[in-house]
Amino acid sequence: MVKLTVLYDQPEDAAAFEKYYQETHVPGGAKLPNLIRFETNKAVGEQPPYYRTADLYYDDMASLQACLGSPIGQAAVADLDNFAKGRYKVLITEVHTVKLPATARA
Amino acid sequence: MVKLTVLYDQPEDAAAFEKYYQETHVPGGAKLPNLIRFETNKAVGEQPPYYRTADLYYDDMASLQACLGSPIGQAAVADLDNFAKGRYKVLITEVHTVKLPATARA
Repeated sequence: MVKLTVLYDQPEDAAAFEKYYQETHVPGGAKLPNLIRFETNKAVGEQPPYYRTADLYYDDMASLQACLGSPIGQAAVADLDNFAKGRYKVLITEVHTVKLPATARA
Repeated sequence: MVKLTVLYDQPEDAAAFEKYYQETHVPGGAKLPNLIRFETNKAVGEQPPYYRTADLYYDDMASLQACLGSPIGQAAVADLDNFAKGRYKVLITEVHTVKLPATARA
């Protein structure tokens, strides 16, 4: 499994960011081909290193690349500058899910 | 759901980092109380913004805080400086899993 993570810096206008992100960007992203899991994550706490992150999961790198090369994928990438305005980083990683022991809850 | 993400910068000695991370840090992390999912993610591509990330998922913030306050949690945090040596950031986020339409694969 692989994922594409978008790391969003603190926006200048968080209210405007949230409105566009929730009403336009995320609904568009949910239509991306080959996507198997899509998480949007909002930072908590004081002075977090990023404002938000988004994780888009794919079966493998070929699926991710086919997604980014598709018309919907290209539109989603282009849409980033409609609200994040260059204030983001993109990271692509190979995902390893660690097997957890059957532990008791604390 | 919430998650704690560790963002690791490129290490000076990647081989030494990998050895300690895989043999000591991740097996220790898998024993953390309240952890419901644990992903370790290795960057691909040219000049990624981070070398690795790790995502530790919990049911809620209270579960995360109880984990970090536990002896195993405190040991895992202290262990970071045995191999990452201050070259990392920590981000805590509230996780929203976006519902995906039943789309065809590209």
